[in-house]
Amino acid sequence: MIFEIRKEHKQFGGKVVFASHESKSTKTLMNFAYFLPNKPVKSAIIWLSGLTCTDENFITKAGAQEFLKDSDTMIICPDTSPRGLDLACEHDSYDFGSGAGFYINAQTEGYKDHYNMYDYIKYEIVGLLKSEFKVDNISIMGHSMGGHGALILGLKEKELFTSVSAFSPIVHPTACSWGQKAFKGYFGKDQKLAMEHDATELVKSGVKRSDEILIHQGLNDEFLEKELLSDDFISACQEYGQKLTLNKEDGYDHSYYFISSFIEEHIKFHLKALT
Amino acid sequence: MIFEIRKEHKQFGGKVVFASHESKSTKTLMNFAYFLPNKPVKSAIIWLSGLTCTDENFITKAGAQEFLKDSDTMIICPDTSPRGLDLACEHDSYDFGSGAGFYINAQTEGYKDHYNMYDYIKYEIVGLLKSEFKVDNISIMGHSMGGHGALILGLKEKELFTSVSAFSPIVHPTACSWGQKAFKGYFGKDQKLAMEHDATELVKSGVKRSDEILIHQGLNDEFLEKELLSDDFISACQEYGQKLTLNKEDGYDHSYYFISSFIEEHIKFHLKALT
Repeated sequence: MIFEIRKEHKQFGGKVVFASHESKSTKTLMNFAYFLPNKPVKSAIIWLSGLTCTDENFITKAGAQEFLKDSDTMIICPDTSPRGLDLACEHDSYDFGSGAGFYINAQTEGYKDHYNMYDYIKYEIVGLLKSEFKVDNISIMGHSMGGHGALILGLKEKELFTSVSAFSPIVHPTACSWGQKAFKGYFGKDQKLAMEHDATELVKSGVKRSDEILIHQGLNDEFLEKELLSDDFISACQEYGQKLTLNKEDGYDHSYYFISSFIEEHIKFHLKALT
Repeated sequence: MIFEIRKEHKQFGGKVVFASHESKSTKTLMNFAYFLPNKPVKSAIIWLSGLTCTDENFITKAGAQEFLKDSDTMIICPDTSPRGLDLACEHDSYDFGSGAGFYINAQTEGYKDHYNMYDYIKYEIVGLLKSEFKVDNISIMGHSMGGHGALILGLKEKELFTSVSAFSPIVHPTACSWGQKAFKGYFGKDQKLAMEHDATELVKSGVKRSDEILIHQGLNDEFLEKELLSDDFISACQEYGQKLTLNKEDGYDHSYYFISSFIEEHIKFHLKALT
């Protein structure tokens, strides 16, 4: 076993496990949680969490395990950034540094040595799933910053991920303050890198998947207008031919109460693609 | 409205609400959470949480709302003790004082003025459900210390509660250290009062309900042997004719991962009784 189990709990006949491993990408100990149903698994879903979250939020609040319990698909939830470091400005704000890795590989001083969450997911989480859990197929989904992560990884690594979905994703980071701040902090002034890690700009540059992307977005989401900008992604997908179902849900906010309300639909979407 | 809404979130077409009201029983502001399905409600379930919990744990972690969303039954989750006080020893340990009200009316100095959680549930939560939500029937359930609360309230207030269930309840508080410590702190040396607020002793004294009580208990629960003592309640119910289904579940622990695994069964048990 190339990871250490910190605690585990039986749930729905399977088990929720909290574990840690040494990461080459981040040069830190990284935490992750996973749910294993009570039968041999053949496939996995990666869940990427949003700003301020850890490996715990999704597995305790989203209610996904119920819809995986009878499947042969596990779900794994990595932490949202390296931990235990003390880089410049790393712990000063909720939207940059710790808890806010943005699933990209940093180029800036200090951060470039550790904040390599894109590679961490692409190589290490995927590698762990293949070597330790022997899964064949992997899908990816996430929320907010994690929705951004799922979209860019899903678009850029088409062959790696069977299906892609997101809740309330940051779809156009180069055009919103969360994304601009993070990209400046991690990429410096490199606008090309920024554009290559922006789902809307990726689609506009011709990158696309042949399968449909599923998104749910609450219309009472306090971040919709300024940060999430769903319509930008809808326009790009329409113009450049990326299949997309984006469900705008009246009255729902940015919280896990929203995620839990539609998680069944997302899990079924991925299970259908994976099996 | 005789309570103040602090925040609300749409979930499953209904809503999760966090609210507060002034309590006569505790002479403090008390917090509670509730879920209202998206149709007029006719009945309610009261959920009583365990040691260290607040009004939030159940509503974020248990996954119950999914099974109530299409019903005409709401669920309400009171806090586990008064807050904002500074009584002697109130904040010294996790199993007495704040977060550990034990759903009884205290008799001891200082505590008797505020720690009246039995009356708070019996009169104020029930009163709120009837006056503000116009429910006809109310059931009660809980976990650990809250399972103890549900059992004693359900046994002593037979007419008030339509059905009673519990996860991992403290069934015999006068025989375990959690219960002995709490009863000594709240009741002083009054053994009669202690016996009258102990589910096993109540049944042994002839108190019983005509309907069946439902309990789930994990067999990997770290508190089973020393604190929960399920078998004492099974014996008492067998001997004194209280109908009981107590499901011992292999491998499950004391956590919300256990509760979420069997919450559907409990919600259906109550919905059947309530409607």
